[in-house]
Amino acid sequence: MPVTAYWCERAWLPDGVHDHVLLHCDSSGTLVSVESEVDSDGDAIVLPGLTFPGFANGHSHAFHRALRGRTHAGGGTFWTWREAMYAEAARLDPDSYRELATRVYTEMLLAGYTAVGEFHYLHHAPGGARYADPNAMGEALIAAARDAGIRLTLLDTCYLTGGIGAPLSPPQLRFGDGDADAWAARVDELAARYAGAPDVRIGAAIHSVRAVPDTAIAPIALWAKENNAPLHVHLSEQPAENEACHAAYRRTPTELLHQHGALTEHTTAVHATHLTNTDIGLLGAARATACFCPTTEADLADGIGPARELADAGAVLALGSDQHAVIDPFVEARSLEYGERLRAGRRGRFTPAELVTSATAAGHAALGRPGAGCLVVGAPADLVAVRLDTPRTAGVRPDQAILAAGAADVHTVVVGGRTVITDGRHALWPAPSSPASAN
Amino acid sequence: MPVTAYWCERAWLPDGVHDHVLLHCDSSGTLVSVESEVDSDGDAIVLPGLTFPGFANGHSHAFHRALRGRTHAGGGTFWTWREAMYAEAARLDPDSYRELATRVYTEMLLAGYTAVGEFHYLHHAPGGARYADPNAMGEALIAAARDAGIRLTLLDTCYLTGGIGAPLSPPQLRFGDGDADAWAARVDELAARYAGAPDVRIGAAIHSVRAVPDTAIAPIALWAKENNAPLHVHLSEQPAENEACHAAYRRTPTELLHQHGALTEHTTAVHATHLTNTDIGLLGAARATACFCPTTEADLADGIGPARELADAGAVLALGSDQHAVIDPFVEARSLEYGERLRAGRRGRFTPAELVTSATAAGHAALGRPGAGCLVVGAPADLVAVRLDTPRTAGVRPDQAILAAGAADVHTVVVGGRTVITDGRHALWPAPSSPASAN
Repeated sequence: MPVTAYWCERAWLPDGVHDHVLLHCDSSGTLVSVESEVDSDGDAIVLPGLTFPGFANGHSHAFHRALRGRTHAGGGTFWTWREAMYAEAARLDPDSYRELATRVYTEMLLAGYTAVGEFHYLHHAPGGARYADPNAMGEALIAAARDAGIRLTLLDTCYLTGGIGAPLSPPQLRFGDGDADAWAARVDELAARYAGAPDVRIGAAIHSVRAVPDTAIAPIALWAKENNAPLHVHLSEQPAENEACHAAYRRTPTELLHQHGALTEHTTAVHATHLTNTDIGLLGAARATACFCPTTEADLADGIGPARELADAGAVLALGSDQHAVIDPFVEARSLEYGERLRAGRRGRFTPAELVTSATAAGHAALGRPGAGCLVVGAPADLVAVRLDTPRTAGVRPDQAILAAGAADVHTVVVGGRTVITDGRHALWPAPSSPASAN
Repeated sequence: MPVTAYWCERAWLPDGVHDHVLLHCDSSGTLVSVESEVDSDGDAIVLPGLTFPGFANGHSHAFHRALRGRTHAGGGTFWTWREAMYAEAARLDPDSYRELATRVYTEMLLAGYTAVGEFHYLHHAPGGARYADPNAMGEALIAAARDAGIRLTLLDTCYLTGGIGAPLSPPQLRFGDGDADAWAARVDELAARYAGAPDVRIGAAIHSVRAVPDTAIAPIALWAKENNAPLHVHLSEQPAENEACHAAYRRTPTELLHQHGALTEHTTAVHATHLTNTDIGLLGAARATACFCPTTEADLADGIGPARELADAGAVLALGSDQHAVIDPFVEARSLEYGERLRAGRRGRFTPAELVTSATAAGHAALGRPGAGCLVVGAPADLVAVRLDTPRTAGVRPDQAILAAGAADVHTVVVGGRTVITDGRHALWPAPSSPASAN
């Protein structure tokens, strides 16, 4: 059995930072040995600085990357931002979507993400016409992830209404499958194509209680359960969603999901910003994951959600970059803690280890890969070596580096035993047609 | 007269981003021509991407850089963090202070700062003994700034009490000059040495109403006025300061400064986090500057200050990196806007142009260099070329790049006509004795 060896100057193991860690990975990309305080065996690939498990990006809308640095004129709200996002969505077809997503996933790898959860609802052609393959847009994302070399969980998203009880608006028509059965039939076909793929998983998503009627929640949750698939849902990102939900159902969005059986340990609630104490208790009791997207939640003026309270109630915290105003797992982790400090007026709301877990193992589990994101025997060999000798990281304690490093400090990224980033460079960046040079 | 030419792919001029900007700088480091939409003259130094005026770091405690990534264990508050900071301060002498500050100022240049305001109170030896030169520690900072190549405004800080009416604690003894007259006598001597220096200015600072009694405020303000020097003061960073001030004086810290004549257009209030509406009105009416330090104010759990209200009242907003948990002018600017979005629940609280002004011209003015930080004839030739082709900046609108770029995207930095950073590298980074390689 061919084995690859990696010798890490330091590595983040489950019980903390260890020096001189030798890892072996088999030909399937799985770690088969983890030893601390040993010399390199000479043939090992040397990973400088501190090697983390691969970071997981729990929530992505790849095409929003096209809006970075383009929506800050003229003020506006979340809802006016959404108009710009719809205009971007209207321009994409499978070819251009694949090209854009390849660049975005490449940027994620450069930043240290080895897995991404793509919350995908851009299913059909403008106006809602079906492509010859009704999963052509999902296939474009899968091809992009494979071209870039990142693990993908395609969270195929059900999107049925333009608001509670409202039809889809013209730009939303391409998001819609008509009803939950039609959604499930399309996703069944896609999932069958990727059964057993090591790099691609198909999950389910309820876009939100705005876009999925109460009667469709249980069928989607059932599909996820029957397929052993993760179930994601945008939850209470904006107060307006809560108000509309309460007006229609006399319940909070969290209560509505709970009522219809959509809150389990396989559920990930994205944002979870504006919650009641009851909501926090329900999410915690279910051992659901709350995927915070701190840079997006600041950029879109959503607010700072109750992260510490959720964790204390029993929920798991993961992290995502969502609209990709920033693609940097260190910044998301730091911003989770900083948001708490600003809310609470106290430091040290999460330990550095808790932040690393949210950025790694918790995210991989939420994307349907429990056990990934840890440097232990049997886990995937996803490795991110971060330099500790850059202007940003020089002098920091390795066990607190998550709070000081940044994407530009990533040196090497290995995904399942395949080296994708070396010395901060990816084979696809810059793109051959681009004037850009490397990171 | 020798003249240096710079040809910018794009440049941030007072009325917006222009393409193909040719700048000429004379031998004194002053811009003598600024032309848009012209071809390079062939001999010009080519600046790629977008050239900003130099960024100004309005508030620095250089030695706090030693705490980066080292204070996140065990929770705690601002006040427990301060204990770690005092322990760091206790270790420094003029030689080690110079060495540390040289590295910190080098990091600032790598990030695009061309000027720094050092809020300096580490004056004397441990226990309070005077060095042979009572300004030895200030001289260490000046030497460090000159070694690194950054403009320095040394805000020589008066620090007299360990709390209102309380003596200095043992670690604070080296901060103290005894009284305002002794402080002024020492600073007079230092200021005389640097009268007319193009790269060094001596300013004044009142540490805070905690550390300076009410009777000493007016003498310090008078010194600043008579010396045409900027006056800085830590203001209402923590609620505890406000409470102590109110208990002692029946006034807010802002009201106390106003009462004693310390609020003018040459005053910079650092932090200005916990203000009353009256405070905001006083700062605005004085046309004072409020220097926000967003990354520090998050890291230390201070809170989010009323930036938009201050600006609307007439105050000027500047930015600083303070304790240097982060050294990145783009992140400070973005965080100013993001903080507002989180407070207000709305996007677009400041225009990108307002953020650039806070990060450049407003900061230079607050450091005693009015007119700097703009690419106009007669201004200092401080230039920061930022690449627009990196993973972070590709695709952004140049006029919104302040919200998307980062320190790692800085390509070239020119300070007064002297090129200090080329291709993201500084001659002093990595230090010859350091194992680090470049940015």
